[in-house]
Amino acid sequence: MPEFSVYEILNRKRRGGPLEPREIETFIEQYTRGDIPDYQMSALLMAIAINGMTATEMATLTQSMLRSGEQWHLRDQYDFIADKHSTGGVGDKVSLVLSPWVAACGIKIGMLSGRGLGHTGGTLDKLEAIPRFNARLSRKQFERAIEESGCVISTSTEGIAPADKKIYALRDVTGTVESLPLITASIMSKKLAMGASALILDVKTGSGAFMRKVQDSKALAQSLIAAAKGSGTRVEALITDMDRPLGVAAGNANEIIETFEVLKGHGPADVEEVTRAQAERLLVMSGRYDENSARKALDDALRSGRALEQAYKWIAAQGGDPSKLPEPRETIEVKAPRSGFIIAIDTYEAGMFTVDLGAGRKKVDDKIDYASGLMFDRNTGHEVRAGDVIARIQLGTTGRDPEELRRRFLSFVKFGDAPMVARPLVHEHLS
Amino acid sequence: MPEFSVYEILNRKRRGGPLEPREIETFIEQYTRGDIPDYQMSALLMAIAINGMTATEMATLTQSMLRSGEQWHLRDQYDFIADKHSTGGVGDKVSLVLSPWVAACGIKIGMLSGRGLGHTGGTLDKLEAIPRFNARLSRKQFERAIEESGCVISTSTEGIAPADKKIYALRDVTGTVESLPLITASIMSKKLAMGASALILDVKTGSGAFMRKVQDSKALAQSLIAAAKGSGTRVEALITDMDRPLGVAAGNANEIIETFEVLKGHGPADVEEVTRAQAERLLVMSGRYDENSARKALDDALRSGRALEQAYKWIAAQGGDPSKLPEPRETIEVKAPRSGFIIAIDTYEAGMFTVDLGAGRKKVDDKIDYASGLMFDRNTGHEVRAGDVIARIQLGTTGRDPEELRRRFLSFVKFGDAPMVARPLVHEHLS
Repeated sequence: MPEFSVYEILNRKRRGGPLEPREIETFIEQYTRGDIPDYQMSALLMAIAINGMTATEMATLTQSMLRSGEQWHLRDQYDFIADKHSTGGVGDKVSLVLSPWVAACGIKIGMLSGRGLGHTGGTLDKLEAIPRFNARLSRKQFERAIEESGCVISTSTEGIAPADKKIYALRDVTGTVESLPLITASIMSKKLAMGASALILDVKTGSGAFMRKVQDSKALAQSLIAAAKGSGTRVEALITDMDRPLGVAAGNANEIIETFEVLKGHGPADVEEVTRAQAERLLVMSGRYDENSARKALDDALRSGRALEQAYKWIAAQGGDPSKLPEPRETIEVKAPRSGFIIAIDTYEAGMFTVDLGAGRKKVDDKIDYASGLMFDRNTGHEVRAGDVIARIQLGTTGRDPEELRRRFLSFVKFGDAPMVARPLVHEHLS
Repeated sequence: MPEFSVYEILNRKRRGGPLEPREIETFIEQYTRGDIPDYQMSALLMAIAINGMTATEMATLTQSMLRSGEQWHLRDQYDFIADKHSTGGVGDKVSLVLSPWVAACGIKIGMLSGRGLGHTGGTLDKLEAIPRFNARLSRKQFERAIEESGCVISTSTEGIAPADKKIYALRDVTGTVESLPLITASIMSKKLAMGASALILDVKTGSGAFMRKVQDSKALAQSLIAAAKGSGTRVEALITDMDRPLGVAAGNANEIIETFEVLKGHGPADVEEVTRAQAERLLVMSGRYDENSARKALDDALRSGRALEQAYKWIAAQGGDPSKLPEPRETIEVKAPRSGFIIAIDTYEAGMFTVDLGAGRKKVDDKIDYASGLMFDRNTGHEVRAGDVIARIQLGTTGRDPEELRRRFLSFVKFGDAPMVARPLVHEHLS
């Protein structure tokens, strides 16, 4: 084997040439240990961000970052354990609905999830809107929660993928966040650490998604699937729509309420449909269901109230009391300024507005105001009459200028005269 | 003016977009002051190395690096002062011959020069082979030397282009040395600091040059000329051949001896021709000569012995005594293993061999053995008979295996049966 040379690696990647698996592994090992300085890693990150990586390089990078920390291998411990990941969006409470629903069908599911940053909300932030909900479980507590209630969602522990933590912090300050191979390795090195039997990826597409174009979202999905090759976790992906907020609620406490509404069978249809599509794939991937029996089991679990019951059991197992959610101090109605159709909501701007209301973070150490958020009573495609309430702005604090908030809301909503062809909620299935 | 954002700059350059002059200036200022950390600069350097820079960006980068330190503006102090820069080669003693030759024609010339690293020798190293030669002049001493002898060569002072020193050290460890805009800014930020009236660039091309292909050398020359736009120094370039060692001697003390031989009128013709071409351009750029009178003046200076006299005066002005050069302890002859023609000398390999003999540096803090080097008694294109001495290996120390050294020498020399078409010594003139 040739000698490991940072110099040679940086020069090769600058010229666009591929790196050997051993080179990537050693680079990640030495960087994580502190033997390679930040300035060499940032040069490599920039070269990767510009020149890309082959599928093999990307899988090696993912595995190297994964191996920098703990690996739980839960698939060796249970007959079958499912996992789910979303690339993030506005109003995306799918994980919250999916977990108890799938568990109610007898499929264990666990997630090591993240907090929100920028326009997309974070699953853990939403759960932490529930008083006393414990989202920081040790591995032991995580396993106990699965055994007690069949499902669990917790934050990634310190020991998982330390290479990713270090690299992500560096990417954030070196202009290398937007990079398919680096995004892929970051997501998958954390997701594969739990070691699920099967993982469903919800790759969002549209104005509120990380990738706005369907083809880019598809490329990301394929990249994520490729990076998991050989890891022992079976991965499939659905490309789902994020060109409009998902459901009515976007925030934290309001999304918990909506989660229960969906589980009670009278939530927004789009949330139910997107969640059902993913739940179905997990049931089929377990090998215990085919598509028909999966659909039937999911219907049963919902109609019988078992999914809802499962949600209470799960939240209780993690110490939460959903009967006492924080409530807004003030709610401002937004009315349609004209009659017609809502033909677009810039969902990125909608997400950034929820952040400004206190429901999200601009910086990692920003505090969340769990009671604030938006309620999209009308969404893209809906017909409205002038004066109809189309949205409610929920505020956890008082004293903001209602007119300014209304103007801000209306600035990202587009009205038109004719209805428009609806985008599908599920664009594509990849495996 | 929009707010200065490192984040935005790194992201834009990653995508290939151009940077605003003010962005480049502020980035360099803040990096030099230590307000921007190495890991952000190395990300920018990698993005520039891959995505390039426009001529405007490159000129701004050069000027910003130049302005990070002292600027001498010598052109304001003298009617005319010339400068010269070579991109480096093997046996390249042109600066040593040129300076007194031009000065003997009444043209003041000063150079802030560098030491050798890798396969190319350094002008200052060659001069320091002369006992007591002082290559570390203060600005005052530099000016006094010009006034005393009309020419001077000294090392760049600490205060010149500190941004370049910091950036170069970072490029060296981040795989970003090979980059036309970064090379250009590094060279020109140092060369423009002296503030000559006119600068002639000797851009080498061939197997012993930084750029092996004529078109790449030409691109570098154009880039160097473009980066000087608006600086007040008039710049021209000659693309000269470095596909074979220049002259007979490659080393340090042996190149000083050869310099005097050329100035005495019986040195190798190639050294004289390449030097003459550059000297002529400087004389013409001064406005005091046209091409004909320049040629005549240079002939006169050489034939009359005034150029030689000037060399003694100059070296004495810098404290050196060329009568006592270090001599090799041992000289090993290399004989032609066959009859025929020398059809190629891999000049990079020849340069690396001189480094291994002690005549150059692999690392910046390596010590030079001034007495060692190579004598190319026969060069590319020459006809030889088996057994003819084609080269001498000069050693400053004893105890090395002569056979191994001979084998090493012959490994980079190619023999053939037919003569070959000679490459021109001067490929092109750019202004």
